[in-house]
Amino acid sequence: MAGTDSTRDLQRRPGPAVVLVEPQLGENIGAAARAMANFGLWDLRLVNPRDGWPNEKAVANASKADHVIDAVRVFGSLEAAIADLSLVFATTARPRDMFKPVFGPDEAANRLTAHVMAGQGAGLLFGRERWGLNNEEVALSDAIVTLPVEPAFASLNIAQAVLVLAYEWRRASGAAELPFSGNMDEPAPKADLVGLFEHLETELDDAGFFNPPDKRPVMVNNLRSMLSRGQFNLQEVRTLRGVIAALTRRHKRANPSRAQPDRRKK
Amino acid sequence: MAGTDSTRDLQRRPGPAVVLVEPQLGENIGAAARAMANFGLWDLRLVNPRDGWPNEKAVANASKADHVIDAVRVFGSLEAAIADLSLVFATTARPRDMFKPVFGPDEAANRLTAHVMAGQGAGLLFGRERWGLNNEEVALSDAIVTLPVEPAFASLNIAQAVLVLAYEWRRASGAAELPFSGNMDEPAPKADLVGLFEHLETELDDAGFFNPPDKRPVMVNNLRSMLSRGQFNLQEVRTLRGVIAALTRRHKRANPSRAQPDRRKK
Repeated sequence: MAGTDSTRDLQRRPGPAVVLVEPQLGENIGAAARAMANFGLWDLRLVNPRDGWPNEKAVANASKADHVIDAVRVFGSLEAAIADLSLVFATTARPRDMFKPVFGPDEAANRLTAHVMAGQGAGLLFGRERWGLNNEEVALSDAIVTLPVEPAFASLNIAQAVLVLAYEWRRASGAAELPFSGNMDEPAPKADLVGLFEHLETELDDAGFFNPPDKRPVMVNNLRSMLSRGQFNLQEVRTLRGVIAALTRRHKRANPSRAQPDRRKK
Repeated sequence: MAGTDSTRDLQRRPGPAVVLVEPQLGENIGAAARAMANFGLWDLRLVNPRDGWPNEKAVANASKADHVIDAVRVFGSLEAAIADLSLVFATTARPRDMFKPVFGPDEAANRLTAHVMAGQGAGLLFGRERWGLNNEEVALSDAIVTLPVEPAFASLNIAQAVLVLAYEWRRASGAAELPFSGNMDEPAPKADLVGLFEHLETELDDAGFFNPPDKRPVMVNNLRSMLSRGQFNLQEVRTLRGVIAALTRRHKRANPSRAQPDRRKK
């Protein structure tokens, strides 16, 4: 992974090609390129882009995804664009009157992964802004991919559809490690936790918190359960003990001559 | 689900609230609303939107997601916006120096689902366009969500981040049925397939295809394997038999007096 470096070091890991069929707007081509770059795809192919190629708006909207824009290939037909691919999925929101399997993005990504990991070429087709892919283009594909959208609000633009599929690709292909993790130190051992509990309970006894006394066992158990749930690490246990000490120091400074446990509930 | 009807019939299924903290651009608010509507979320809350509310650009960019825009609530602080929620995740691309669990979108969606299905309020925070969420806002949250982006191309805009999380919510919450299925008739029984095979093999025998004859068994097996793989349904088997018949009729019309099997390889 490139990290902070330039595109020179960018690994082009095997992945499906993204094929835009007769895209109309350069902005959408650029946004698609950017969505691809976000999730590690880089092979962008255009079939008869309306405004030709290169396209300034595409470059502008690609943000920093130059490596995708620079590698764009333009074809005069879909057949030519997918000639070297042996698994092609057509993304569409409309059902078609033909016998074609239909997958959601997750299942599609799993199948693409198996294919690509076996060293074979795969591709995802996306259609025109206005009316998507035509039936001949879908017929050329091995299966349909459709997104599980709310039927009343089904419209996604090209870049959004690319984004969701690219995200699922990344997940399925095992590259979905997060950029950073929780950095959670391990929880403190029970010895330290019990130290915290006893510290707190001693101070609470002193403050007359457990009132009436026969309720003490239940209240102590509830407190201990509450303080266990956070799985505090050692630093956090020490912090809490410091909090307790600070609060009780303050209380004790304000009431230096307290010899009897205070019956007031804290 | 609403299908073709107006928003009046739209089911507002329980789901996480989406909280945008100090969003700057109306276009982004609108696009976020639209992304929510695509995947069945509807509870959008804004904390101190820069340009106030209502916002024309937000309405314009929400496309038809009026039901989300109309239900937007505006708050003066994050604390107020999440007051009724008991599980809040902060979406951020930057690691923080605090002990906070970090989840990917899929794990986050699973946890949100469990929480919401138990009847409790949950929310997803998204930060400002320029610099996301600050540490105080992350500290108020139960966990961080981050997307598994390519580190060199990590920038996603707000609506894109909302889209991926809304998609994962839909998947995790069991609402991810696809708008349509493959409508694949079941494969034809073997009797019909064998009928096809024998039809084809008879014609191929007649055409002298199996040459030399001792290779016939292997070639027949390969053909049968090839023709089995497509799991043709009855209609497709009939179509293929019609294709074979049409081709051989043509051939026979052109060569009516063929009494001997033709040794030419077809």
